[in-house]
Amino acid sequence: MTRYALTIEYDGRPFMGWQRQAHGPSVQEAIERAVERMTGEAATVHAAGRTDAGVHALAMRAHLELVTKHPEPFRLMEALNALLRPDPVAVIDCRIVPDDWHARFSCTGRSYEYRIVNRRAPLTFEAGLAWRVVQPLDAGAMHAAAQILVGRHDFTTFRSVHCQADSPVKTLDRLDVERDADLVLVHAAARSFLHHQVRSMVGCLVMVGDGRWTAADLAAALAARDRAALGHNAPPDGLYFVGARY
Amino acid sequence: MTRYALTIEYDGRPFMGWQRQAHGPSVQEAIERAVERMTGEAATVHAAGRTDAGVHALAMRAHLELVTKHPEPFRLMEALNALLRPDPVAVIDCRIVPDDWHARFSCTGRSYEYRIVNRRAPLTFEAGLAWRVVQPLDAGAMHAAAQILVGRHDFTTFRSVHCQADSPVKTLDRLDVERDADLVLVHAAARSFLHHQVRSMVGCLVMVGDGRWTAADLAAALAARDRAALGHNAPPDGLYFVGARY
Repeated sequence: MTRYALTIEYDGRPFMGWQRQAHGPSVQEAIERAVERMTGEAATVHAAGRTDAGVHALAMRAHLELVTKHPEPFRLMEALNALLRPDPVAVIDCRIVPDDWHARFSCTGRSYEYRIVNRRAPLTFEAGLAWRVVQPLDAGAMHAAAQILVGRHDFTTFRSVHCQADSPVKTLDRLDVERDADLVLVHAAARSFLHHQVRSMVGCLVMVGDGRWTAADLAAALAARDRAALGHNAPPDGLYFVGARY
Repeated sequence: MTRYALTIEYDGRPFMGWQRQAHGPSVQEAIERAVERMTGEAATVHAAGRTDAGVHALAMRAHLELVTKHPEPFRLMEALNALLRPDPVAVIDCRIVPDDWHARFSCTGRSYEYRIVNRRAPLTFEAGLAWRVVQPLDAGAMHAAAQILVGRHDFTTFRSVHCQADSPVKTLDRLDVERDADLVLVHAAARSFLHHQVRSMVGCLVMVGDGRWTAADLAAALAARDRAALGHNAPPDGLYFVGARY
């Protein structure tokens, strides 16, 4: 038995999300199909995070185990990339890991990036790859307000009703907002996140950025611990899984 | 009669190029159709550069003239953007200019960027938006060799057989190569370029970068003034029109 850790980049636009679905294509299914075509083995590919439909990854971490075949990691990566065509999924790193290394359960930190394009004109290159916000955003005010959310809190307000986590209490390590011309980037890091947490936090930060909310409104929404207090849930388009720590 | 200058961003992947074609969609046709739907006028849209099939623009400059209708520039821009959907074309600036201002003939400088992704893994987000080069490239050697091409030269070697320019002599103002992680960027600027000149120069610089050519080979190819001396013509995917000077 050989366990391989993969680092995977994918454009989430054509997928129903990471996780295998009965009703549409998923990234997991695309990779598992490539693994099976190469090795004949029906291996399960476990990821550090199960991204939603339309969410992207620059460096998703995942693992799989092969029982009868033990290709060199480089050869496995090359074969998977050839078999994944034309899906917008690429294996950018592959290595052998100990049998107890688990992409999801061994992960001690996850980070996401959220891309907002703040302009009037419709998106061309970034259609489906960013959230276009037409109202001018005050990124400085967004960054300042974001610091209210950093730390250990009950994030019920920022949690999808479909969230399966045992507890709504999470520790947010980082929530930074920076502007580079038309691009407003939000960086989020935590050991783990609730379902829709990043998108819900970004949606509320945009309400601060365009002046509909003050920082005090954001603090009140957090304190409410009530999904109904959520200002806005940002679309999946702008969300990228950018890294996992082990 | 009112003359409008437009700044246009477009993803070249679905188009046969800027110029109207009998056999497929063009950016010019998409914009002219939107203008006609808005104003009822069959205006011609003139661009600073006529990009080839699959070539992109971050800020193409163009102009058009309206005879009977004279919308406010902001309203014209908004209407064109609405009518251009779902084509990946966006008008990002629109203003009224004097009647003798011509996007092509008044232009005194054009600049292009060429994006190379230097990695083994297939492209996902950048498929059709960059040239993937698998062999490791020495960007420093490419930049040094590029300086051979800067200045006034007979660029016959770097000119398509379909080029319609009167003379193969052009003055190249800038040809810089820089690396940012996997991305190798080439910046080119000149008053004007021959057909395929940027792609031909980039193709040869990549031969220098991967070690097939020395800087002396590049100098010899330039001196040959012979299309047969060309090392390689880079694909359109990585080419972006990034600006015009007036």
